[in-house]
Amino acid sequence: MDAMPLILGAGALGILYALFLAWYVLRQPKGSGKIVEIHQYIKEGAKAYLKHQYAVILTIATLIMIILLPINVLMGISYIIGALSSVIAGYVGMWIAVNANVRTTYAAKEKGVGKALRIAVNGGMVLGLMVVGVGTLLIAVQLILYGATTEAVKSIIGYSFGASTVALFARVGGGIYTKAADVGADLVGKVEEGIPEDDPRNPGVIADNVGDNVGDVAGMGADLFESFVGSIISTMVIAATAIYVYVKSGWINWAILPLTVAAAGIFSSIITSFFIRVKEGGDPSKPLTLSTIISGTLIAIFTYPLATSLLGADAGLRAFIVVVLGLIAGIIVGLTSDYFTNPSKRPVRKVAFMSQSGAALTILTGLAYGFASVLIPAIGIAIAELVAYLMLAPYGFWFGIYGVALAAVGMLSLAGIVVSADAYGPITDNAAGIAEQAGLGEDVRAITDKLDAAGNTMKSVSKGFAIGSAALTALAYIAAYSSTILDVTGLSLEKVKELMSFLNATVISGSLIGMALPAIFTTVVILAVSDAAFVLIEEIRRQFKEKPGILEFKEKPDYGRAVAIVTSYAIKRLITPGLLAIISPLLIGFFLGPYGLAGALVAATITGLMLGLFQGNVGNTWDNAKKYVEEGHYGGKGSETHKAAVIGDTVGDPLKDASGPSINILIKLMSVVSVIFVQILVHYNLLTLLSIH
Amino acid sequence: MDAMPLILGAGALGILYALFLAWYVLRQPKGSGKIVEIHQYIKEGAKAYLKHQYAVILTIATLIMIILLPINVLMGISYIIGALSSVIAGYVGMWIAVNANVRTTYAAKEKGVGKALRIAVNGGMVLGLMVVGVGTLLIAVQLILYGATTEAVKSIIGYSFGASTVALFARVGGGIYTKAADVGADLVGKVEEGIPEDDPRNPGVIADNVGDNVGDVAGMGADLFESFVGSIISTMVIAATAIYVYVKSGWINWAILPLTVAAAGIFSSIITSFFIRVKEGGDPSKPLTLSTIISGTLIAIFTYPLATSLLGADAGLRAFIVVVLGLIAGIIVGLTSDYFTNPSKRPVRKVAFMSQSGAALTILTGLAYGFASVLIPAIGIAIAELVAYLMLAPYGFWFGIYGVALAAVGMLSLAGIVVSADAYGPITDNAAGIAEQAGLGEDVRAITDKLDAAGNTMKSVSKGFAIGSAALTALAYIAAYSSTILDVTGLSLEKVKELMSFLNATVISGSLIGMALPAIFTTVVILAVSDAAFVLIEEIRRQFKEKPGILEFKEKPDYGRAVAIVTSYAIKRLITPGLLAIISPLLIGFFLGPYGLAGALVAATITGLMLGLFQGNVGNTWDNAKKYVEEGHYGGKGSETHKAAVIGDTVGDPLKDASGPSINILIKLMSVVSVIFVQILVHYNLLTLLSIH
Repeated sequence: MDAMPLILGAGALGILYALFLAWYVLRQPKGSGKIVEIHQYIKEGAKAYLKHQYAVILTIATLIMIILLPINVLMGISYIIGALSSVIAGYVGMWIAVNANVRTTYAAKEKGVGKALRIAVNGGMVLGLMVVGVGTLLIAVQLILYGATTEAVKSIIGYSFGASTVALFARVGGGIYTKAADVGADLVGKVEEGIPEDDPRNPGVIADNVGDNVGDVAGMGADLFESFVGSIISTMVIAATAIYVYVKSGWINWAILPLTVAAAGIFSSIITSFFIRVKEGGDPSKPLTLSTIISGTLIAIFTYPLATSLLGADAGLRAFIVVVLGLIAGIIVGLTSDYFTNPSKRPVRKVAFMSQSGAALTILTGLAYGFASVLIPAIGIAIAELVAYLMLAPYGFWFGIYGVALAAVGMLSLAGIVVSADAYGPITDNAAGIAEQAGLGEDVRAITDKLDAAGNTMKSVSKGFAIGSAALTALAYIAAYSSTILDVTGLSLEKVKELMSFLNATVISGSLIGMALPAIFTTVVILAVSDAAFVLIEEIRRQFKEKPGILEFKEKPDYGRAVAIVTSYAIKRLITPGLLAIISPLLIGFFLGPYGLAGALVAATITGLMLGLFQGNVGNTWDNAKKYVEEGHYGGKGSETHKAAVIGDTVGDPLKDASGPSINILIKLMSVVSVIFVQILVHYNLLTLLSIH
Repeated sequence: MDAMPLILGAGALGILYALFLAWYVLRQPKGSGKIVEIHQYIKEGAKAYLKHQYAVILTIATLIMIILLPINVLMGISYIIGALSSVIAGYVGMWIAVNANVRTTYAAKEKGVGKALRIAVNGGMVLGLMVVGVGTLLIAVQLILYGATTEAVKSIIGYSFGASTVALFARVGGGIYTKAADVGADLVGKVEEGIPEDDPRNPGVIADNVGDNVGDVAGMGADLFESFVGSIISTMVIAATAIYVYVKSGWINWAILPLTVAAAGIFSSIITSFFIRVKEGGDPSKPLTLSTIISGTLIAIFTYPLATSLLGADAGLRAFIVVVLGLIAGIIVGLTSDYFTNPSKRPVRKVAFMSQSGAALTILTGLAYGFASVLIPAIGIAIAELVAYLMLAPYGFWFGIYGVALAAVGMLSLAGIVVSADAYGPITDNAAGIAEQAGLGEDVRAITDKLDAAGNTMKSVSKGFAIGSAALTALAYIAAYSSTILDVTGLSLEKVKELMSFLNATVISGSLIGMALPAIFTTVVILAVSDAAFVLIEEIRRQFKEKPGILEFKEKPDYGRAVAIVTSYAIKRLITPGLLAIISPLLIGFFLGPYGLAGALVAATITGLMLGLFQGNVGNTWDNAKKYVEEGHYGGKGSETHKAAVIGDTVGDPLKDASGPSINILIKLMSVVSVIFVQILVHYNLLTLLSIH
């Protein structure tokens, strides 16, 4: 427990530095007139949506807490703290994002690209540092308050569950909101009326800008918050259950190691933030890409002394290598996404080229590359997983499994910098939108567009990172699930392995059903987006028809109504998929027993990784192919090729920003629910009740 | 061995009845003039392609045989017999199909719908009965010639491998051919020049018609031939390895049972064929759908006495129930595909409705339903698998596993009737094409169109059946793989289960890589189709440009060149995916050992089932949504809605007819290769060489 001050300090520092950056952003001038007016609309819309969304989420979370309390009081308390932590981190992050956008626009107008970049970057870092700071600090605080016992650690898993619950609803709701608004506003505005994107005449334009914030800021933040705390806590659970059996009193060092890696991540993120600068006229995408490399290197450097002092020279060195493996796997997943979505690489260019023969080949070629983008990350994660196991397995089987979970922690130690870079995207996107709507000059828009473009590269990298880390976190949860079974049943390792063999009919049965869950989840989210978009389309058409003056700038569109409609629809449609994710593992566990459920978890994780990578990458490939055509290739804007590319982009939008990212949480949430309820499922399931097995 | 005369008799009867039906078809008049000329083109094109394709396949097969002979002489011999069996069944089936098309057209012109239906149905049944007749007869003959020993049965697995090899290349090559021709001919003909489908002015029209035969007849026949013999032989292998340990001399009855179920299938198919009749003016789709139900019922009735006489009252009853479970699972998979692709059901109608808002929503809604179509078949197969295990598990663990494989045999006992119904499709499709190209009257085309429409329903049902049965067959192979490991290593069941646990890092590692294989396979096939289509498009454009008289019926297009171009391209592009499928399990097995490979096989099967069902169903949903619009809904032909629906259809074409079906074989071929080489992989793999584990 000697490392606790360091961990608490890192967590507190993360939060304080986030608040300092928030103060920095808020004290920048936001200008006046039109740009502030638009900014105000976005802020109000985002606040209104989040108020609704969090009300629904916290109601559901309270109900779940009430169910958990009788099972384990501490777990119930941890659960609600987890839910609140996620809400607070997400809300603060989004609050600053919607305030940073207009200030970025104003700085671009008054001070140029360097200052504008700084505001946008600092605005994004508030979310990134809140995520890692709050997560690290509160896990450490719980460990201290509950006492550093194995029972206490097992209760802290409730914290992950709380974070998952918020993440799921925030990702799904935010995803439905942002894509319904985007697709709806585009289909009537750009396609039917021929007015440009972000045009103030479009009644859906504010909803679209709001969507970027509630989806890509609050939703994505909750997602990575969940992965971050999930990887840490599942590693701790393995230490408190299976490792404890081997080393007794030494277990606590193994339990604390992931927290120290997280602390290293916080320090590294803060240091890295000083390197993200650009000279006047420079390219802002370079420092952003570089930041991941710098941050990863710093984490590795900090981790080595921490790991060896906790675990001794040999085990510490091995743990250090495992953390580095996780970092490398994360970077491989990110770079692969970059390859498949970068306009200077073959996939995007080929999709743009094929668009010359019409939308069918845009879609087909895109699908082909989307499926191809799965292989390298899968191999990267497979190698990291196997080598992580082999590194620590010499100490005993469960140390190897601990290694797998620790690799996830290593990957997620990048969360601070990845979330920061990702949250930068919506800020600059909004800043460009505000510049457009306020009709600022060409020179200002050139700067905001450049900042926006830099955000796009990071977006696809962080999308790949989010699903890759989710899969590794889910594997860590599954490892914790297995060690919990060992702990609860008292069975031997050999017996548990035997029961978890896919030579068993229940395991295969579970795998078949688990495989279908990410697919059906995708269906539910896509249909929710397209239905919501349809409703918004009708509203926009109605406004254009009833107020013909809107198109001639003579009447003002009713932005508020469009925002309200998308809000209520997104809230309505987020409940079903959310409950599906929580209830399905319980149903599978009841019908097929804990080992059948294990099969389902593995299959859902594996197919979820595939569908998640596929959807995220294919969406960004289409998006960038469209942008590539818009730069003037193959006929440029307005050509038939462009029309085909726009269809690809529209198809990809909900895949990359709604259904794809929701799968990240589905697989994590299913696993954490299983870890918590396995102690009940082991005794109460249909097979046991029927005395089969 | 008392059942052998029955089995040999059934096999021989199947072949003889197929030859009788072939004679019946060939003796029908084919008319004269234009229709015969077109038919001649199709026949020549199909023959030329198959000659090329089989030359490549048999060269590769000979090389593989040479590798197998030193390992096991009988297995090498079985291998080449398996390859030749598949080639012969496929070639005869296709030969009759290309002769039945013109005779169907002529009968529609001279005699009406009843006679035309009979010719088309009988033409299709030639392939169906060849597949089941040749398979059943030759497995039985090998068993007799090799002697009914466990070693002999283990060698017969070579027969499956031979069948898989042909199936893979035939499915991939046929799929690339048919879809490149279809997409290429449509994009220039329908979209650019505005001439109707099957118009004789289109230089690609014959290639399109040829494609239906080499893809949907020869390719699909080889696919189901593989599943059919694969399910039988893997069940026999489990009997000869694991069941043998329990019951010694009694094992042979368990080994023969799947052959008797196959025999029951042959008798049932022949009897069922007498029920497929339609009165003048009647609807030909009803008897086709009904045939599956009749055939399934007959198989169940025949199986009961056979199973009880082989295994005794109790085990026989249980085996009977398992066969029925397989049949029901097959029907559930088929009916689900029907629901998602039937124009009278919600999915097709909603896709058509959404097409009013443009192609993006056509694609998105289609994707959503495609993913949804996975759930019910997955649950159906999961339940069948689990209950099949539980039925026979009271006799011992491996009897339960045998049950899983036997369920696959039950499902595949429908192969005769399913293949027949599926081969009916291209015959009537070609018949309608010939009527169109020859400019026959409205009344004749009304009949051929009606026959064609009936074929479409069956096509989507049999597509679902093909992937569902492939997954169950792959599970049977994986079971045989496990029992072979037991047999080769002499390890205890508990130990093998333990090693195959996904708590092991190699198993998870293998699963991650196995998951990516169906995805990357999809990529390779889609890109091959779109590249081949591109080449054909250029050729068609060139012909239109150099011979402007073609479009005014003044010059004749060069059909032969188009056929030759697609042929050489399809042949060139079938080799890479084919070798990929054969080599990947060997590579995975070498790097991750036999248990890591087992993880890869399970993951590839599960994700293959998902991607296969998804691609097959989404393609047919789009196809039928387009047809629904063409019937006059939402603006009908030529409307903006129709254009959107056509884009959906074009995207779906390669998914449903090339990449999707190829996955069926990928998962089977990977598994059978693994069963054969596991005896080597157990000893020679990187982990063993490095002394890890």
